Amino acid sequence: MTRIAILGSTGYTALELIKILLRHPGSEIVAVTSRQEGQPPISTVHPSLTHRLELPLEDLNTAEIVARAECVFSCLPHGASSAVVPQLIAGGTRVVDFSADYRLHDAEVFAQWYGQKHTDPDRLGKTVYGLPELFREQIPTAKLVANPGCYPTTAILALSPLLKAGLIEPADIIVDSKSGVSGAGRSPKLTTLYPECNESFSAYNIGRHRHTPEIDQFLSMAAGKPVEVIFTPQLVPMDRGILTTAYAKPTAPVTEEKVMQTLQDFYADEPFVRVVEHLPGTKDCAMTNYCDITARVVRGRVMTISCIDNLIKGASGAAVQNFNLMFGYPETMALQ
Amino acid sequence: MTRIAILGSTGYTALELIKILLRHPGSEIVAVTSRQEGQPPISTVHPSLTHRLELPLEDLNTAEIVARAECVFSCLPHGASSAVVPQLIAGGTRVVDFSADYRLHDAEVFAQWYGQKHTDPDRLGKTVYGLPELFREQIPTAKLVANPGCYPTTAILALSPLLKAGLIEPADIIVDSKSGVSGAGRSPKLTTLYPECNESFSAYNIGRHRHTPEIDQFLSMAAGKPVEVIFTPQLVPMDRGILTTAYAKPTAPVTEEKVMQTLQDFYADEPFVRVVEHLPGTKDCAMTNYCDITARVVRGRVMTISCIDNLIKGASGAAVQNFNLMFGYPETMALQ
Amino acid sequence: MTRIAILGSTGYTALELIKILLRHPGSEIVAVTSRQEGQPPISTVHPSLTHRLELPLEDLNTAEIVARAECVFSCLPHGASSAVVPQLIAGGTRVVDFSADYRLHDAEVFAQWYGQKHTDPDRLGKTVYGLPELFREQIPTAKLVANPGCYPTTAILALSPLLKAGLIEPADIIVDSKSGVSGAGRSPKLTTLYPECNESFSAYNIGRHRHTPEIDQFLSMAAGKPVEVIFTPQLVPMDRGILTTAYAKPTAPVTEEKVMQTLQDFYADEPFVRVVEHLPGTKDCAMTNYCDITARVVRGRVMTISCIDNLIKGASGAAVQNFNLMFGYPETMALQ
Amino acid sequence: MTRIAILGSTGYTALELIKILLRHPGSEIVAVTSRQEGQPPISTVHPSLTHRLELPLEDLNTAEIVARAECVFSCLPHGASSAVVPQLIAGGTRVVDFSADYRLHDAEVFAQWYGQKHTDPDRLGKTVYGLPELFREQIPTAKLVANPGCYPTTAILALSPLLKAGLIEPADIIVDSKSGVSGAGRSPKLTTLYPECNESFSAYNIGRHRHTPEIDQFLSMAAGKPVEVIFTPQLVPMDRGILTTAYAKPTAPVTEEKVMQTLQDFYADEPFVRVVEHLPGTKDCAMTNYCDITARVVRGRVMTISCIDNLIKGASGAAVQNFNLMFGYPETMALQ
Repeated sequence: MTRIAILGSTGYTALELIKILLRHPGSEIVAVTSRQEGQPPISTVHPSLTHRLELPLEDLNTAEIVARAECVFSCLPHGASSAVVPQLIAGGTRVVDFSADYRLHDAEVFAQWYGQKHTDPDRLGKTVYGLPELFREQIPTAKLVANPGCYPTTAILALSPLLKAGLIEPADIIVDSKSGVSGAGRSPKLTTLYPECNESFSAYNIGRHRHTPEIDQFLSMAAGKPVEVIFTPQLVPMDRGILTTAYAKPTAPVTEEKVMQTLQDFYADEPFVRVVEHLPGTKDCAMTNYCDITARVVRGRVMTISCIDNLIKGASGAAVQNFNLMFGYPETMALQ
Repeated sequence: MTRIAILGSTGYTALELIKILLRHPGSEIVAVTSRQEGQPPISTVHPSLTHRLELPLEDLNTAEIVARAECVFSCLPHGASSAVVPQLIAGGTRVVDFSADYRLHDAEVFAQWYGQKHTDPDRLGKTVYGLPELFREQIPTAKLVANPGCYPTTAILALSPLLKAGLIEPADIIVDSKSGVSGAGRSPKLTTLYPECNESFSAYNIGRHRHTPEIDQFLSMAAGKPVEVIFTPQLVPMDRGILTTAYAKPTAPVTEEKVMQTLQDFYADEPFVRVVEHLPGTKDCAMTNYCDITARVVRGRVMTISCIDNLIKGASGAAVQNFNLMFGYPETMALQ
Repeated sequence: MTRIAILGSTGYTALELIKILLRHPGSEIVAVTSRQEGQPPISTVHPSLTHRLELPLEDLNTAEIVARAECVFSCLPHGASSAVVPQLIAGGTRVVDFSADYRLHDAEVFAQWYGQKHTDPDRLGKTVYGLPELFREQIPTAKLVANPGCYPTTAILALSPLLKAGLIEPADIIVDSKSGVSGAGRSPKLTTLYPECNESFSAYNIGRHRHTPEIDQFLSMAAGKPVEVIFTPQLVPMDRGILTTAYAKPTAPVTEEKVMQTLQDFYADEPFVRVVEHLPGTKDCAMTNYCDITARVVRGRVMTISCIDNLIKGASGAAVQNFNLMFGYPETMALQ
Repeated sequence: MTRIAILGSTGYTALELIKILLRHPGSEIVAVTSRQEGQPPISTVHPSLTHRLELPLEDLNTAEIVARAECVFSCLPHGASSAVVPQLIAGGTRVVDFSADYRLHDAEVFAQWYGQKHTDPDRLGKTVYGLPELFREQIPTAKLVANPGCYPTTAILALSPLLKAGLIEPADIIVDSKSGVSGAGRSPKLTTLYPECNESFSAYNIGRHRHTPEIDQFLSMAAGKPVEVIFTPQLVPMDRGILTTAYAKPTAPVTEEKVMQTLQDFYADEPFVRVVEHLPGTKDCAMTNYCDITARVVRGRVMTISCIDNLIKGASGAAVQNFNLMFGYPETMALQ
């Protein structure tokens, strides 16, 4: 049994995380934090947790967290997470960090895309990226795991095997992604008000979405040379799910069979990646930790289609998968 | 050609009003107001109006409005509307008021339900309620028309004919209403954030929704004795539309045919009420000024089902219908 | 470990059932039936089951089913279920029946509402209704459990305690229910085509919905005298969830506190009924086996609001709850 | 006043067409056809037309249509349209054809993509494509206008000006399109059943969607050399709207300003194309005949984003725009 604290517990990823952990036989949630006044029960903020989790929302300092928890899931926003992670780790608590703070390897790239100086730059480049399909062996011993971004998960899982196999060119990759609205968080704002985004489809943050350098970095690792993708995030009127259509040039003429076989071989033993023949929809993965991937060759160009539940494989499910690896539980525990 | 100013132009009812007026050959929109700084073009707030209405959002005082406009549509919230209406009328500008400020006849009832003292109580009880199906003859000469609330429109249109005909008991009427999310306005708040209300159905403000006394008042007028309804407002995950299911006891055993005939006779000449045999859905009325009504007798109890587009017949379409009557245009102009 | 067969496996309730059973440590799914030709893998019909359940869809006769399975979940339509249940039971296989075939106690009532003669009338009135909150003690030894209808679950759970306590009148109860579209099944038809029901709210089958006698029957049992409800089913543009607003007259003046206390006392030890102070929304129960209930007293009338996930507590979750009781597993297994 | 017949009146494009024509002062709908038996009123199929259009659905032959109507809007499927168009034109009736039958210039390409031999091949290549922004001058005198496909409208309007100006390469254009569900028509099928496509996003018909050769053909005309696009159609859980993201390589390094200026100049006088600075969403164009277009240059690649209401500018609005040009009405009549 592992004692768990969740930092920043009022949002959608924390809620989803709690629901998964409540099914996990090795998990004991001992604290949920928030800056709410008066320590209200968490069910006042998440009514679906009524009778399921009876903890108060507490505003704890890092010493108090360290004293209580062996593992912290930090759902704090970027900047806020790296402000507490060093003390948590120093105190002996291991951390799965949902923020982007430890995903990038280069403090300058972080500063450029996030508009602020990184406060814990020494850990950049040394922190494992919590995508077990690519970095499984580094996770069990990690003190800190950088949980992947939702969009990057779809792009990296679909394209890395093809880049590693040398099937597609590193240049000129297009990543056209579509996400449900929960990905925009739970803070009320006009753009995600129901009547604004319902019955509408739109793109946003073109050319400046912060998941761009994260996709670049891990595709570059796969390719062995610099990759700079064209990344288009788009908003779909649905709660959850991301589907990414990626377009790449083959390095040489290639058949669909060859592309599919490469993906199938790469993910043959993976519990949470399904390489499928049919065109998957986000609903196939909804409420699961699966990433479904397929590929097509159209007029000589290679296309991949990959989809996940952005709150599960794109956030809280991946976090529990990492937690399982870190603490010696079966990798799929509570995720099936 | 009538010069029109719209007060409080950033919300959904104002947007819908503008779209209708742009099709109205007798309308000239001369001012749209808002407290925005810097007089941005209205299309920055409503991108769908790009190239269609090129006016800036202005923060005008009543004198400026009076100087420019013959007719004001006030989309201001309650309290704010009655703060400017007296001066507008004194200046000779006629007003269609979307707020609840002039709908109730009794300042004490207003204070009780709206939690504030009415600042212009002398006009209460003397202002015409802009439901032409019941009060058409008073509208052409009115200086001020109180545009009906969305929920009350569905309840009053469905039940008034049956109360007037003495077919149903005034006591014990249940009004179970369901509304799309646009009825909650355009201010960002958690309850109307997309992932909160999408894929969910819920009731709210039971026993204390401010449309209750408005329904009571006009059903009491129809019945000739006091009516106090049980009113349940509920939120449907859709943009627009209200459907109201009302339940009432017949005063004596009655057939479905008799109830239907009573409704058909009452609305025989009405351009915007359709008494239909089938069970209507809100989509049948979407984007139109129609109210569809049907009735059933189930196990001896009378049921009515009525539906509208809450932004059209429940707000901006009704307002233009009133405007047409006030300024001598054909009642259906721009509404078909 | 219990060997399970699922009859009629191509619909939404079967899919949901399979997802629950895949998490159940005591369940072994050994057969899934359908009349499809060629025994395709079930994942061709339910792509979300890819890699999760590798069984073919088989067209089995009852002897084959009996030979393989200890427990059958029948997701067959009414009429089809009672055509096979007798042989299954005779063969020693226990059955949870999702259809309406064994819910009603009176073959004449069945014939009247379902338009066909019951083929196994002797079991009517002797089959336990699988609502553990009311009939738990009869379930462990049952050969056959009639799994409750989705609408009736919400109405019966909310109103039975109040009728049993004599707080509300048996006469004149109104049950105004709203359901997501999955309740209408997976057979393509115009009324549930996406562009027909999306962005629309409508009532259907007023006065003749087949869940009416089911609600009547169990509320009559609770009241100890005949109850005939006015039942209004309505369609909400969402996948899943039912919310029922019920209206009843108190037998004597009653406070909201008293009504709430009666519900809280009745369900104090129930794992899947949450009596809540706030107004619940269907999303609070989505993907769970909970029924959330609250009550209000408005202008002297008692209202209850109850909601469930129609595919879980309204179908497949309830079925597994019954299965757990029948086969000696903890009642909440795989349901939390 | 022009006498109009609508062929194939039970679908969504016919409904939308009727709603537009009811606002058109020069239009008199004299016949609506369908193969329904018994000539039911059209409102039984389209309840939203109750009291608005009182015509029966008739099963007319071409001679009867010619006798009644000066203009036919054919909403028949491909193949069915070309089976009647020659006789209609021979009879002197002018036709706006919603099907794909007369859009392609080459009967072999038609046969290849539509899987059937064209029955009226002589008109291919001689029929004007009803996109007034590109072919306005040919429309007024046309006997037959091929109304454009919905997806092609977004792609052709966004990319043609850039190809004509030589700003982008004809090779390697990617057209990633997303459509609301109404585009799939009104015939009940599993893929467009509400619970199948709600809360899901998916691609379909990759590499074989029939709008591909239509996009190719008109982009080739703009480029002056063969264009073969990679076209990806995708389904969005919403009623209406198409948004297309297109990616192209610049022929030489180019600024965003230059691309935007090229689009603005090209469409400066167009009533229904809005070149906008912001990122448009489909809701901005919903229920209108506008196509909103913007462009970005990202990491050296040119992107366009264009959106329409698929039932208006993508079908019935465009058809009325063509009708207006054919019969001498102001081009924007009934469309604003």
